[in-house]
Amino acid sequence: MADNKITTRAANYSEWYLDIVNRAGLAENADVRGCMVIKPNGYAIWENMQRALDGLFKGLGHVNAYFPLFIPKSFFQKEEQMAEGFAKECAVVTHYRLKSTNGKIEVDPEAKLEEELIVRPTSETIIWNTYKNWIQSYRDLPLLINQWCNVVRWEMRTRLFLRTAEFLWQEGHTAHATKKEAEDEAHSILMDAYRKFAEEWMAMPVLTGPKSDGQKFPGADYTLCIEAMMQDGKALQAGTSHFLGQNFAKAFDVTFQNEKGQREHPYATSWGVSTRLVGGLIMTHSDDNGLVIPPRLAPIHVVICPLGKSEAERGPSIAAAEKLAAAIRALPRDDFFNYQPLNVKVDTDFEHMPGYRFAEWELRGVPVRVEIGPKDIEKNACVVARRDMPGKEGKTMGVPIESAPSFIEQRLREIQANLFNRAKTFRDANMKSADSYDQFKQMIENPGFIWAHWDGTRETEDKISEETKATIRCIPFDRPKEEGKCMVTGKPSAGRVVFARAY
Amino acid sequence: MADNKITTRAANYSEWYLDIVNRAGLAENADVRGCMVIKPNGYAIWENMQRALDGLFKGLGHVNAYFPLFIPKSFFQKEEQMAEGFAKECAVVTHYRLKSTNGKIEVDPEAKLEEELIVRPTSETIIWNTYKNWIQSYRDLPLLINQWCNVVRWEMRTRLFLRTAEFLWQEGHTAHATKKEAEDEAHSILMDAYRKFAEEWMAMPVLTGPKSDGQKFPGADYTLCIEAMMQDGKALQAGTSHFLGQNFAKAFDVTFQNEKGQREHPYATSWGVSTRLVGGLIMTHSDDNGLVIPPRLAPIHVVICPLGKSEAERGPSIAAAEKLAAAIRALPRDDFFNYQPLNVKVDTDFEHMPGYRFAEWELRGVPVRVEIGPKDIEKNACVVARRDMPGKEGKTMGVPIESAPSFIEQRLREIQANLFNRAKTFRDANMKSADSYDQFKQMIENPGFIWAHWDGTRETEDKISEETKATIRCIPFDRPKEEGKCMVTGKPSAGRVVFARAY
Repeated sequence: MADNKITTRAANYSEWYLDIVNRAGLAENADVRGCMVIKPNGYAIWENMQRALDGLFKGLGHVNAYFPLFIPKSFFQKEEQMAEGFAKECAVVTHYRLKSTNGKIEVDPEAKLEEELIVRPTSETIIWNTYKNWIQSYRDLPLLINQWCNVVRWEMRTRLFLRTAEFLWQEGHTAHATKKEAEDEAHSILMDAYRKFAEEWMAMPVLTGPKSDGQKFPGADYTLCIEAMMQDGKALQAGTSHFLGQNFAKAFDVTFQNEKGQREHPYATSWGVSTRLVGGLIMTHSDDNGLVIPPRLAPIHVVICPLGKSEAERGPSIAAAEKLAAAIRALPRDDFFNYQPLNVKVDTDFEHMPGYRFAEWELRGVPVRVEIGPKDIEKNACVVARRDMPGKEGKTMGVPIESAPSFIEQRLREIQANLFNRAKTFRDANMKSADSYDQFKQMIENPGFIWAHWDGTRETEDKISEETKATIRCIPFDRPKEEGKCMVTGKPSAGRVVFARAY
Repeated sequence: MADNKITTRAANYSEWYLDIVNRAGLAENADVRGCMVIKPNGYAIWENMQRALDGLFKGLGHVNAYFPLFIPKSFFQKEEQMAEGFAKECAVVTHYRLKSTNGKIEVDPEAKLEEELIVRPTSETIIWNTYKNWIQSYRDLPLLINQWCNVVRWEMRTRLFLRTAEFLWQEGHTAHATKKEAEDEAHSILMDAYRKFAEEWMAMPVLTGPKSDGQKFPGADYTLCIEAMMQDGKALQAGTSHFLGQNFAKAFDVTFQNEKGQREHPYATSWGVSTRLVGGLIMTHSDDNGLVIPPRLAPIHVVICPLGKSEAERGPSIAAAEKLAAAIRALPRDDFFNYQPLNVKVDTDFEHMPGYRFAEWELRGVPVRVEIGPKDIEKNACVVARRDMPGKEGKTMGVPIESAPSFIEQRLREIQANLFNRAKTFRDANMKSADSYDQFKQMIENPGFIWAHWDGTRETEDKISEETKATIRCIPFDRPKEEGKCMVTGKPSAGRVVFARAY
């Protein structure tokens, strides 16, 4: 552990990512194929994400509930597109008992289920089967429900946080009396919950808009998405919000009496974000020193390192550190930090040299580090270092202890803003336009998003994807009005769409 | 819906319970055998329980993490007692793919797993398999980890919240360098987290102490429990904390180097409470008018009902209600309500008569109801009614609007204390002593707990259980010192233990 360096991004981006996940104690592969163990440091980030998102959903009028893990196989039959597109790589429960034969544990062949149960890959079917009993009249609408849970999709190639067989997520499922209301809901979740969370909490700029038909959720009329650029220029789908039309209502025979006394099918949305966001956070902000966590989501906001070469020097340093920590924790709570007190850690690991200790906290992504040594105590001051600017640039010497708590809180807010601006600058600098397919094919070998004209057909989309491994990530809401010709077919296009290779 | 009466406890306790769960919108049976849907009103109580418990665990130094849903079958083989006692009624995943044949969805026989996966009934095995890599040195200890998740046990006879195939819970799994430290942990979780939560948040008095060997967790050296009395006099095991000795460390070959450089097996605890607590909350406090929720766990603390016979009368009532609601929400946040603002609902349902509206809110268990009508507005006052005392007794007329927020907050604290005292008085009044087995057999036909002498053997315990359906619930820590003779065998006993029929 003497050398706490990690692989650099330039040397091997993929190894760099796994080094951070491993060395910062975020997650590891489990001894169960395709599954991960989310370790305490990683789970703490997810908890903060949950708290913030849950607040946004509730602020928009949603409530939480919980639906079963298991879905009878026949439910998948009811919504054809779902069955085609989704219900394939699933975990299937076929038996409900083990037995012990001569001390060996076996599945009891007598305990075979009449109908197999699928471990939910997503819950539209079981939820709409339940809504059937909940929705009778327009007075029962809208139904604005979310659930936090685990889901399973039998992925073959996995990567920690980004793609695992089991993952944690939230899935919202709403029912509305009118098409407009449901479409507004899908849009509001995208913009007022997901975009807001990505940009204001994760400090991760996102494109917003619909997916192409080729990339939409099976069973949806259309899918809206937030799409982010990672530091290697690849795209990460960070959240989706689906307008489901009346598809599930029809499949599960859900109707309500409208104000005129007529029976109608309600309109639906569903939307979700997952622990994949932790992967997105890592790949958006971290550097060659390790993890960088935006302050609003940081499990530890401030680490204070008392310094000293002898016991005699260390005692006063520790006392000053503890006093400062208490003062920071006692700052008034506010909305910016979700009404939680700032979390301050005092690091008293004197077995290692200061440089090693600082590097370890940088590796773990703590936004602000404070150093207090004998010389600082003489001046009744401390040193404040910002994680977003490692080295001298981000270090302020001689911060008076008295005003340090408010100074530090202000730095945390600045770091939050700086991380967003930096990521946005990077993203914008790596968006290019291609005006011919040849130009596109060259550009796609380099990192970044490419804006290009496309004729709107699935056929062309598939061709591009097969030939370049790039997919249409998003048709941005705010794309410039610019008519043109499809770079592949020359057919008319109403505006450019965004292509990229993606995680 | 004109008649919003529920079955009374006296008429049919079991129907009364199900009526409350149903009519207060807490949960319902799912169309998946043995599973439940936790509806928004029920889930909101669970969320508040989670928040409070999570705060207690973290206050004791624990962190959260997440381990896989699936456990390879062979893991159960490693801990023999676990395998014998636990791994029987489990959901077994045998396949990982569905396929569509002529539009019909089938399990793909080609996609059979080499080793079956068990949906976790509890996670000791997979967690200790993981800890093997995390624990090398005494410096890695203690490991104080908790997880919030779903578990599945294939129960045949289910009852909403109390016993379902899938349920939600938390499970703590800790590892320690010494036996004493692990035993202290098991004890501290029982007393400082579970007892504290049950009594101070749920307002539910509990007995604390070890289980008999016959009732302990398979794989544990011993099991500590909190045990509560429901209003029908039956016992509910509300939480357990297990000292696991070195059993799992040995089964999964986990060792660490102690301070002297020797390799040792660490000592373990595990502990859990589940959504069953929601059932316990209902059965401890509710009455024939419906649900009663202790204020510290209430999703809605206060409902304000503006009154008025005409639009002209209703307008000012609604305005006064909204103003009061805002004032209550703006009360300073404090520890008692977990730093959350009080949740206030304004009920503007003028389609129903006031009596109906009041009854509906009583049914849903909201701790305080405020009424504001034209006569109240004249006096610049309101009426405050307590849920724990329905009828005139709990109603205060003419509370000045100005001081109503603090008056109401004070009532919420009183209700919390009153519910606990009332439940404790009931519990204590229904604890009896039996001095002979004949007397015991008569007593057990009536509600309540029975303190009796027992010879400490599994044989006698099993005989009593078979003959009376009563089990040993707890050997209370604070039982009086009283030597005696086993009521069945006449053999010596060091003190009475507590028997009851249980959920």
